[in-house]
Parts: sequence; structure tokens; C-alpha cells
Amino acid sequence: MSGSTIAFAGARIDRADAVRSDPAALEALMDWRARLLKLDGLDPEIGPDGGLVWGTLADADPASEIVFLGLLDGRGHFAEVQPKVGGSVAPANPRLWQAMAAMESEDLAIYGAARSLIDWHARHRFCAKSGHPTKLTKGGWQRSCSDAGCGAEHFPRVDPVTIMLVEHGGQLLLGRQPRFPARRFSALAGFIEPGESVEEAVAREIFEEAGVRVRDVSYVASQPWPFPSSLMIGCHSHTDDPALTIDTNELDEARWFTRAEVAEAMATGAAGGEGAAFIAPPRHAVAHHLLKWWLEQ
Amino acid sequence: MSGSTIAFAGARIDRADAVRSDPAALEALMDWRARLLKLDGLDPEIGPDGGLVWGTLADADPASEIVFLGLLDGRGHFAEVQPKVGGSVAPANPRLWQAMAAMESEDLAIYGAARSLIDWHARHRFCAKSGHPTKLTKGGWQRSCSDAGCGAEHFPRVDPVTIMLVEHGGQLLLGRQPRFPARRFSALAGFIEPGESVEEAVAREIFEEAGVRVRDVSYVASQPWPFPSSLMIGCHSHTDDPALTIDTNELDEARWFTRAEVAEAMATGAAGGEGAAFIAPPRHAVAHHLLKWWLEQ
Repeated sequence: MSGSTIAFAGARIDRADAVRSDPAALEALMDWRARLLKLDGLDPEIGPDGGLVWGTLADADPASEIVFLGLLDGRGHFAEVQPKVGGSVAPANPRLWQAMAAMESEDLAIYGAARSLIDWHARHRFCAKSGHPTKLTKGGWQRSCSDAGCGAEHFPRVDPVTIMLVEHGGQLLLGRQPRFPARRFSALAGFIEPGESVEEAVAREIFEEAGVRVRDVSYVASQPWPFPSSLMIGCHSHTDDPALTIDTNELDEARWFTRAEVAEAMATGAAGGEGAAFIAPPRHAVAHHLLKWWLEQ
Repeated sequence: MSGSTIAFAGARIDRADAVRSDPAALEALMDWRARLLKLDGLDPEIGPDGGLVWGTLADADPASEIVFLGLLDGRGHFAEVQPKVGGSVAPANPRLWQAMAAMESEDLAIYGAARSLIDWHARHRFCAKSGHPTKLTKGGWQRSCSDAGCGAEHFPRVDPVTIMLVEHGGQLLLGRQPRFPARRFSALAGFIEPGESVEEAVAREIFEEAGVRVRDVSYVASQPWPFPSSLMIGCHSHTDDPALTIDTNELDEARWFTRAEVAEAMATGAAGGEGAAFIAPPRHAVAHHLLKWWLEQ
């Protein structure tokens, strides 16, 4: 599956890793040509064309910390961690979803990376090892403990998550999380834990949530997901026994759907026509791509 | 590739997720039948058979925090976070490598998960959001801020890392990190950053480290790696231009190797016979499996 079809991926921006650890090079980029992403906390300012809005570093709150996003068209691109940002682990609000749905994929990718990074800074103003304040270093790709005796270095966090299709007799297992809108079903998902391979996490999550034992787990596609900073790892698997035992703490419902039902739900889209058995996941979600991939097999 | 062939994966232990959030169930498992993994800080105590050693909860330092590893043979299995453990981001020492090389895969998987988890606790005794002390909750699968006004919840960290083969004209690109033993070459690798898909991180890392543009990135296998808590995501890719520009901050050297050279290095193993062009990565590393997989294509 091509990366460019996946929302939040495909940014043309050059992360210019070498600049981050070169204070002189970074400083030289922070001139009048530098562009600052206009944000209200974690939310993007939206221009008349529906895209992101860029200002200059002069627009930044003097109390903000500045993050280097990378190079684009030869200019440094930055974002600010405003003092008011407390960090959020909540999913996006409906207004943000609407704005993101109208954004070009390039803007969406830049915004997603910036949001994850800013949110991480806002939730890591103190050192988890010693409790002292931390300060932003390496253009925002590190935070360092301000206490010389501790000196701990902290790096932006990415949480790998498995999201997986389970197949049996040509049908797919999909579930409803309690927070989903009415009639929405999607692929089951869960965080990968320390000490697990991707394939083991897939098997554990499906058994925990639906009581189903899977085999032949295979990788399909991945996606960065900025709420707050997940790496979605999309997989496919099979089961020989379709009997379900639902964990009602995790899921309101889980069901097997035929190929025709999945095809109809994907064709009617988020509107969810009367005829469709369920409402498919939105096109921004990697689950949407997993279902599309499956229908094309 | 089957999960069971990958070191640090394949534990039979049931993580029993539901027990973690059920204090009464967890308490009931912490009886005289419970087993405690014997550790000296992060390092395992090794029995006369070369395996892990288990005691009872009575063996724990009263000042330790106790982590629930899961259920095995109907008994709760635990490990302790000793007060002296400060957390380590260093790779394993030679003595530990020797012990791990002699361990059964089941023990290795249990030890790896325990080590990652203990190390995470030791490096997260304070709240990154507010700086207050944290306390272990949910059997060690969460830490919670002790300050009621903050209330932040923190979860064990897993860092996704790409490790990748690059192929051109039947040859493979491998590199030497400065810390490698003499003549060792392995697959290039790097942390996945916020806002990247797996495929994008592969392309960025290879370009940063070796100046090579890749196409057709595909997933091969994954592995949990407990130093301190990575998820290695092994990939394969192609390039149309084999010219190298090495980042000497990251790599001492990078070279193209023929299929015959890779086959000979894998056949002579860690000993690295005189005839071999390089010493292959050890069998515990996912890079070893990537090379084996490639030779079998």
C-alpha cells in the first residue's frame, strides 16, 4: 500500500536530522525567512483555502518553546509550544475533524507531526527520572533534565498500536468501541506492550477483546496517528473458530460481516446509507485502508 | 516468519490484562504460591541449568515495588523494582549476553519483558507532567501521579525502531556502528519519529545514514528488544542508485555485500572465520533473521 494514500503520512518536509544537533545551523535557520505554524494550543489555525496558516517567528509568544519541524523550500519551519498547552490524550473534537477532512494531505501530515511533538513537550515539562524541570533541546527532538546531577535525556514518544482484521470463511470481525458514533464498526486495536512482537500483540488483543484465537498474522500498512502520538500497525489474520466472547469493558459489540456488507458500508461511506449493515471507519483512519485492501484481495 | 524463531518473543505467560485492573483478583494471586523472578537490579539470577530462578514474594525487598508479569501454570508471576535500580539505556554487558545466549527461548522472553518493565518503572518515579512522585498502579502496567490536582496516568513505553535491508543488483547494504565489535556488520536501524509511517522512517533513516533513496519498502518481521524497550520492525527495500554517502556520526562504515558473502558470514556465525567478508549479527538480533530470510528468498 503506498504511503501517500494514508492520512497523516506523506509530508514532503525534510526533517533535517543533522540540523537538530547543530546549534549554529539551527540558529541560522531561525531568521526572518523562517515560517511558524499558526496554532491555538494544539489546534491549527485554518486559512480561507482550508489549509494551514504560517507566520514568522516574530508571531510566537515569547514564553513559548520553539520546535524545529524541518526544511521545506529551503526555509526552516517551526511550531511553538505555548505555555497554556497542558497536553491532551483525548481524541480530536468534531470541529478539528471537520478541518482535517478538508485539508490537503501535505498539510495534514505536517500538522499531525507538529501536534504529536507539541503535545509531548507539554506533557514532559518535568523529568520522569528525578522530578526536576526539563528544557527543550536539539530543536525540540529532545528534552533534557535541568538538574546537572540527573542529566537524563528524554525523547519524543511514539506508541505502537496494532489494528487488525480477523477473517473466517470470507467474513471479517469488526467491533464497536463505546465512544464510536451510532452504527460505526471498525477493526479491533490495542497498544503493543513491552516484550511483545507485533504478531503477539495482535493475537493477545483479539483474544482479550473477542475471545478469538488467530493464526497467520500478516502486516498490511502503517500510519502515524497524532492523538496523541500512536504508530498504527495494520495487520490481517485468520481464525479457525469464529465463536465470540466479548470483553464488554473494551467493546460494546463485535460481529462478523460478509464481504457484501463490508463492500456496501465502504461504498456508502461515513453517511451510512439505510441499506448498509454498518458505518465504515472514516477515510482518515488506517482501518478504512485495511477494509479497502481486504475488498481488493 | 514464525514468532517463535525470534529471540525475546514467544512467552507462554498469560498477561491476564483483566487481573491488572482488578485489585481483589491481583491481591488473591499474591499468595504463597506466587513466584517472584530473582533479579539483581536489572540482571537475572541464573540457575545451575542456565535458566531463570524463581522465589516467592517473601524474597522481595520490602522497599521494592512489585510488578505482575502474568499467569503461568495457574500461578501469579511477579518481579520487583528494587529501590537501587536507576534504569539503564545502555546495551547489555558481555556477561549478560553470555547468560542470555544459554537461556531457553521461554525464559528469554519472560526476562526481556520483565527487564523492559522494571527499567521503565525505575526511570519514571516522577510525573513528567507535574514533577510530583508517581506510584505503581494496575499491577505495574501504569504509574499514577501522587498529586491529586495533576492525576496524570503514565503507561509503559515501547519505542518502535525500523531495521532494514536495502537491496541493489542482488547485493545488500550493511553498516558498522561505532560500538560494534571488529568486522561486525548489520542492517541499518533507527527510531521511528512522531508523524512517520514505518515505510517513511525506513526511507528517512537510510537516506540520513547512507545517502541512499529506497523504494518498495516491505515488512518482514518484528521483535521486542529489551535494551531498554524497543520494538524492532524489520523491513526490506530496494534502491536504484547504490552510491553511498555515509553519515560518519552514525556509522563507521557501510558497504554492499554479495549474496555469497552474506551466506558465508551467516554460515561461519559469530566466530567469523578468516574467509568471511564480515561477522554476521548474533542470532538474538532481528537483523540475523532478516539476513536469513533474505538468503532464503
